[in-house]
Amino acid sequence: MTVKGEPGTPGDLAAPSEQGRPPAPFLRRFWTRAATRLRNDGGKAVEVLHLGEALLSERGEVSGARVGAELLTAYRNLSSSGREAFFDLLADSFIPDPDEVAVAAEAYQRAPSSNTLARLHAATEPLRQELFRRLNLAEGGTEALIAMRRDLLRTLKEHPERSGIDSDLQHLFRSWFNGGFLVLRRIDWRTSAVVLERLIQYEAVHQIQGWDDLRRRLESDRRCYAFFHPALPEEPLIFIEVALTERLSSTVRPLLDPKAEVLDPKLARFAIFYSITHCQEGLRGVSFGSLLIKQVVEDLRRSFPKVKTFATLSPIPDFRKWLAETANAGTGSKESRVSDFLALVDSGSGDVAPTGSSPADIKDELVRLCAYYLTHARKGKLPYDPVARFHLANGARLDRLNWLADVSEAGIRRSFGVMCNYVYDLDDLERNHEFFAREYHVVASRDIERLARQSMLAARPA
Amino acid sequence: MTVKGEPGTPGDLAAPSEQGRPPAPFLRRFWTRAATRLRNDGGKAVEVLHLGEALLSERGEVSGARVGAELLTAYRNLSSSGREAFFDLLADSFIPDPDEVAVAAEAYQRAPSSNTLARLHAATEPLRQELFRRLNLAEGGTEALIAMRRDLLRTLKEHPERSGIDSDLQHLFRSWFNGGFLVLRRIDWRTSAVVLERLIQYEAVHQIQGWDDLRRRLESDRRCYAFFHPALPEEPLIFIEVALTERLSSTVRPLLDPKAEVLDPKLARFAIFYSITHCQEGLRGVSFGSLLIKQVVEDLRRSFPKVKTFATLSPIPDFRKWLAETANAGTGSKESRVSDFLALVDSGSGDVAPTGSSPADIKDELVRLCAYYLTHARKGKLPYDPVARFHLANGARLDRLNWLADVSEAGIRRSFGVMCNYVYDLDDLERNHEFFAREYHVVASRDIERLARQSMLAARPA
Amino acid sequence: MTVKGEPGTPGDLAAPSEQGRPPAPFLRRFWTRAATRLRNDGGKAVEVLHLGEALLSERGEVSGARVGAELLTAYRNLSSSGREAFFDLLADSFIPDPDEVAVAAEAYQRAPSSNTLARLHAATEPLRQELFRRLNLAEGGTEALIAMRRDLLRTLKEHPERSGIDSDLQHLFRSWFNGGFLVLRRIDWRTSAVVLERLIQYEAVHQIQGWDDLRRRLESDRRCYAFFHPALPEEPLIFIEVALTERLSSTVRPLLDPKAEVLDPKLARFAIFYSITHCQEGLRGVSFGSLLIKQVVEDLRRSFPKVKTFATLSPIPDFRKWLAETANAGTGSKESRVSDFLALVDSGSGDVAPTGSSPADIKDELVRLCAYYLTHARKGKLPYDPVARFHLANGARLDRLNWLADVSEAGIRRSFGVMCNYVYDLDDLERNHEFFAREYHVVASRDIERLARQSMLAARPA
Amino acid sequence: MTVKGEPGTPGDLAAPSEQGRPPAPFLRRFWTRAATRLRNDGGKAVEVLHLGEALLSERGEVSGARVGAELLTAYRNLSSSGREAFFDLLADSFIPDPDEVAVAAEAYQRAPSSNTLARLHAATEPLRQELFRRLNLAEGGTEALIAMRRDLLRTLKEHPERSGIDSDLQHLFRSWFNGGFLVLRRIDWRTSAVVLERLIQYEAVHQIQGWDDLRRRLESDRRCYAFFHPALPEEPLIFIEVALTERLSSTVRPLLDPKAEVLDPKLARFAIFYSITHCQEGLRGVSFGSLLIKQVVEDLRRSFPKVKTFATLSPIPDFRKWLAETANAGTGSKESRVSDFLALVDSGSGDVAPTGSSPADIKDELVRLCAYYLTHARKGKLPYDPVARFHLANGARLDRLNWLADVSEAGIRRSFGVMCNYVYDLDDLERNHEFFAREYHVVASRDIERLARQSMLAARPA
Repeated sequence: MTVKGEPGTPGDLAAPSEQGRPPAPFLRRFWTRAATRLRNDGGKAVEVLHLGEALLSERGEVSGARVGAELLTAYRNLSSSGREAFFDLLADSFIPDPDEVAVAAEAYQRAPSSNTLARLHAATEPLRQELFRRLNLAEGGTEALIAMRRDLLRTLKEHPERSGIDSDLQHLFRSWFNGGFLVLRRIDWRTSAVVLERLIQYEAVHQIQGWDDLRRRLESDRRCYAFFHPALPEEPLIFIEVALTERLSSTVRPLLDPKAEVLDPKLARFAIFYSITHCQEGLRGVSFGSLLIKQVVEDLRRSFPKVKTFATLSPIPDFRKWLAETANAGTGSKESRVSDFLALVDSGSGDVAPTGSSPADIKDELVRLCAYYLTHARKGKLPYDPVARFHLANGARLDRLNWLADVSEAGIRRSFGVMCNYVYDLDDLERNHEFFAREYHVVASRDIERLARQSMLAARPA
Repeated sequence: MTVKGEPGTPGDLAAPSEQGRPPAPFLRRFWTRAATRLRNDGGKAVEVLHLGEALLSERGEVSGARVGAELLTAYRNLSSSGREAFFDLLADSFIPDPDEVAVAAEAYQRAPSSNTLARLHAATEPLRQELFRRLNLAEGGTEALIAMRRDLLRTLKEHPERSGIDSDLQHLFRSWFNGGFLVLRRIDWRTSAVVLERLIQYEAVHQIQGWDDLRRRLESDRRCYAFFHPALPEEPLIFIEVALTERLSSTVRPLLDPKAEVLDPKLARFAIFYSITHCQEGLRGVSFGSLLIKQVVEDLRRSFPKVKTFATLSPIPDFRKWLAETANAGTGSKESRVSDFLALVDSGSGDVAPTGSSPADIKDELVRLCAYYLTHARKGKLPYDPVARFHLANGARLDRLNWLADVSEAGIRRSFGVMCNYVYDLDDLERNHEFFAREYHVVASRDIERLARQSMLAARPA
Repeated sequence: MTVKGEPGTPGDLAAPSEQGRPPAPFLRRFWTRAATRLRNDGGKAVEVLHLGEALLSERGEVSGARVGAELLTAYRNLSSSGREAFFDLLADSFIPDPDEVAVAAEAYQRAPSSNTLARLHAATEPLRQELFRRLNLAEGGTEALIAMRRDLLRTLKEHPERSGIDSDLQHLFRSWFNGGFLVLRRIDWRTSAVVLERLIQYEAVHQIQGWDDLRRRLESDRRCYAFFHPALPEEPLIFIEVALTERLSSTVRPLLDPKAEVLDPKLARFAIFYSITHCQEGLRGVSFGSLLIKQVVEDLRRSFPKVKTFATLSPIPDFRKWLAETANAGTGSKESRVSDFLALVDSGSGDVAPTGSSPADIKDELVRLCAYYLTHARKGKLPYDPVARFHLANGARLDRLNWLADVSEAGIRRSFGVMCNYVYDLDDLERNHEFFAREYHVVASRDIERLARQSMLAARPA
Repeated sequence: MTVKGEPGTPGDLAAPSEQGRPPAPFLRRFWTRAATRLRNDGGKAVEVLHLGEALLSERGEVSGARVGAELLTAYRNLSSSGREAFFDLLADSFIPDPDEVAVAAEAYQRAPSSNTLARLHAATEPLRQELFRRLNLAEGGTEALIAMRRDLLRTLKEHPERSGIDSDLQHLFRSWFNGGFLVLRRIDWRTSAVVLERLIQYEAVHQIQGWDDLRRRLESDRRCYAFFHPALPEEPLIFIEVALTERLSSTVRPLLDPKAEVLDPKLARFAIFYSITHCQEGLRGVSFGSLLIKQVVEDLRRSFPKVKTFATLSPIPDFRKWLAETANAGTGSKESRVSDFLALVDSGSGDVAPTGSSPADIKDELVRLCAYYLTHARKGKLPYDPVARFHLANGARLDRLNWLADVSEAGIRRSFGVMCNYVYDLDDLERNHEFFAREYHVVASRDIERLARQSMLAARPA
């Protein structure tokens, strides 16, 4: 058999060996010593690391898939304390050789060039990345690595020293889950039950109450899309739910009602994005949302030429929290006015919104304050509200506020039941985005700007 | 629309912006200055780079796919000298900020830790990698990047200073084309003509003489497998051709004869791998061969339980070259004997093999020398022969030499028509591979070892 | 454009025209007159028939699909009395021309030959069949025709004069749904929700209590298969549910328990067919069951070589009914013994089975009588029990009776909770079937034969 | 296992047995006696018939697929004389019982009703149809039956007594290959080589000269469609080749030139159907052509809204033949003028067309005669020209004649190189078709009608 295409070039043959640098023996001693603290669980964690070592060695080159599978099974079988031990040890394992790094750093400093720089970059790459790359060869490897990162992320707050592991995984995932490899698939009632069941499990914005509820959300006046990666054909990465409507939705109830009548989609003029859900906790920090929205808008435009407006119906999660902070923040006249106002609102037992009988002036002021909040409140330079940050960064426009839009307990608690519409206007997306990205400017409709100016917090209320 | 899953975390929102560092203005000046040398072509190259800049900027985040497509089209339209200019400029563009690197390097040296190390690694990562990642979002992006690297590789010998670009692309490709993402597909006469046509184009070991020849190679006593990447469903990355036979093949002719009778595959006891072809020049250095052979062996074992031996019929590309070098190398007695022998062989007008009438002692000595060559000749520590290097590194065993096995002009020129069989014995693969990887030991059959000992070059010919 | 392949032969060109004989004008008069009785609804029924006329005319040849779709829509929109009128008229429409039949019949009688016979057969074919064939060209035509026959069947008891319409539809369906065109598909949790929902709807033997119940029935220790026709890819025609078990199931409860533990299918030695459901009422009389069982057994044998026994767990629907008939039938000594026995059983308030506390002798005698019933009771020459008829005709063996096997209200009512296992032994199927088909012999196990001999109804109880 | 859906109804259970009437013993005697004439081959034919008998018997109900497969293999292994014997015997076997037919015929005559009629129709149905239906259960059964009919058709001219077998097969095929079950698939370079190879084999109008020629015919300015039956997924039943052009094609050469430049399909305004091929000889008389053209026109309209004209470029196969017949037919003045004219044409050595230098008046008169031929020449009431018959019956309009359009040897021989365009104008199809079907009126353009009026054969040449 001839191996065509430079079979014998170092690239093809020698490369794996080079990458397969065995960990120094001191590592094994380190593992064993460190693990004694934990006895059995620690011992099992060390076994996992030994398999990692094997995977990076010569043996791994021939039997990579098998060794990788063994490692992943061993990892899965670790107890909770075993995983702690494993992450503790992994944080300091398969890291670059300090001597090599030192040499490469000096060489670069002596003579900075693309060559010395490239060598420095290579010298600082953790062998852990290669370990993860080889684990991916095992059957189910990609899924297992995502699950491993999920486990890791849950411990990261208490163990910031493990962030190196996370960086390595995130680096690989950004590469592997590059948007160019994602597949947009429409989800409907024809879709496999395996996938549909995932939607029920994952959807946390507006929980799906079983199969009948799901079915309604997949009727002909709805659209649901998800991104998939070819290696995980049954695992949606992110999905979005869209309602085709005759009017810009101002309240979420009809969209969630399993008995709502089905609209003839030919009559639709609006597409309302009412929920978007990241499914994979282990892929945190790998952004899919913007790309998904863009591709979905394009697909909808092709399918429904008469739909002209693409908008969200979004919660305003931190409005009340921010208002309370503002009231407590200072001693200025504005702050005390807010404080008084909040007291007034709360005297209504907190159920301002649902009754609909709240005095008009309370309602009006709440909406004005909300407009002010969305356009002016900041965390650093960015908008205070996380949902606003997301859509504005995508180039959407803050378009309208809706009173009594989400009267669920959570809706009231977070934003007095107010929701807002962000509009995705394709002609403006790019400009809005640049405006936002450069100057953190919030693009809002005139109405909202006016409301904000009229609020009690405005510099000079109109 | 709520963005569930930490929508507002820095990871999701801020990350792109951070990565979107605009190139310093000096870069634009540098491009323009550099390009003036080349006038028009240079100007066009600079335009491509400007698009790259846009792709990495805020604008790119919203309109990434479109800007990327523009860039790839502009690149494709570059003249040959335009591409030269483009690569020249790219080699020094989108590289890390030297100041940041300096700071990170010092921080690490002052206090080496996983944190300072991670920062140093991040600081040394070329922005070029992010550029390529974003290009991948464009339709046909993956293919275009592979083509770009192919263009680049062809210039690398004369322009070693461009190797940084190559490293970046190779780094990405190793990640993207991770074996865990590859799909093994059987190729047969049911396969799409688009793919079959590629086989005809790419196969260079034993050229396919049109559709009838191809069809014979896909009959029921043959198997053909290829690796595909999900993003390139019509582009085989590597493919292998296998013949199911009753006996270990000793000559390549019957395998290539379009009129050869078709064997009932139930009678087969041997699977002969007679050709393996890397299809994508732009993926050089990304190894698929070993993984392909392993998966193919497994699939064949399942399909044909009676096939017990998996072997290649391989050329020995550098045997004559090495023999000539040896003859010219020294003045020792062995060398002069080889020199005399070569003269004798050549006096037979070079066509030793094809006639079959070569004197038995010439034939015998050639085979002995070939055995010696395959088991003892080295380049550094590795076997001299590139094909031997590949299969031995996979853990195969050098099993048999075949006289008059490839009497094509190339076969005679390269190895006097001798070919060899490497056997893939699953029980021994791992051990053989380790043996080879640690001590560069060539695992060969007793017959071949005996022949080598009897050759005129052996220390003490038996 | 050349039309190759005898484009101009009468077969290709003239045939449709010949078949497109327009109904005699008298037919139109007949329709109108008949329909006046019904006013509006009748008028609409006549419109449907006019469309049928158009479909069979020249116009139908060019615009067949469209006219057919119009007809089907018009039919669907008929009120219930409109459909009655439609069927009434259709029963006497598009029937053969009496004169032609007369001529052909005489010609045959004068000179019987294959030619005159063929002409007679052709002359007697109702044009209605051609009408249905053309309706099948409309989008959704096949489904609509099945639905039409379902409507028809529900009226057939009261309107035996419509049986000609039924014969025509059944004739076509037998041809169209020929087993050679059916596709066996495995149904599991990966299947489309559209199809899964159908299972929930159709399963009437052991009702599926929603999606969780369904999911349990599709776990790894279960198999579910259905036949589909390519024209109805989302409509199962018939499906079967199988449980893989370690032992021959003697009671149905564990098979239906949604919380039952999942068995590792590698441990299975038995495949229990516990439910088979015909889905399409409109395909009554088109048999799929035997073919399905045969193909399923073959697929299971390939997938689970260790499963050696393929058996049903079947109800005995008419046992109590037959026992009561027997008791009431005569005045012989046997009959009166049965009558006394039944009284005794019923004095236990009918709940003999569920308590499990029934006196042993009652239980024993019930089982013996059941054995006698299954092996000796007849309707004409065939077994009295419909389920027995089905499995015995397939060549299965009546293997075992199970006390307390189905303690549901229906199970007690129909057979005192007794169920039985029919075993499909591939080596004996053909012989058993022939035995049954020729002599109506019930193939039963020795145990069952012994029980039957011991029953109070046996000629000479043992 | 319960069999839901009337498991025990006669329809489900008894029906097969009823249909499985064993042939009377006399049949076996008849077979044996008849076959002795042929010795061995006859004996083997009888074996095939015995298997048919088994297939229709009880045994066949359980083991149908296997017995059917045996029969088909036995048939395939028959020698040519064995097949003759088989068809001879089959022509008189599995026919209805004469006594039953007689009884049913009398019953009908005595009291004609839908019931007696239905019984007569059933009584005259050959058991052979049931035999063929059961053969279809065998793997590959459908294909085998089509092949059997192909064999049969080739003998039918010499053996008209076998036409009953043909009727039975044709009856089934018309039902099975109902247009509602056919799947229109686009064929392009992505299609499986198995299917593409069939196109090369079958295309006989304008032969495909190997894979390069085929590839050109599948480029982006061409479309190729085929009908498939789900049971024969790799066997096109009929296919059509379409060229997208800027102008109405007047000559066939550019359409067949493998090196012709590819037109950007966006520029196309015409779709030219230049070849349509029936692939299955064994399906003769089952019409697909009209339906195919209609569906293709619809698909093209959707894909290319700017294409407004759908036309053929068709040969005129029988023009010269008819002209010669006319010349020889009579003694009238017109006939002798034609005779003189033909002599004049032939004096030019017959190659009138290809040189292009033919005297203008010869050319003009030929075209005028051709217009006359297409609009006036008849076979019975239908147009003389078979291609004209096909397209006119579909509702197309005879639009234009093209001089020097097909200068191949065959083109000259058949129609002096003249070809014509039939235009499919969707708005007129139905009206044209009815006009043609009722009055056999040829719908032609004004130009063609004028030319016809001017020809020497016109009643009063203009």
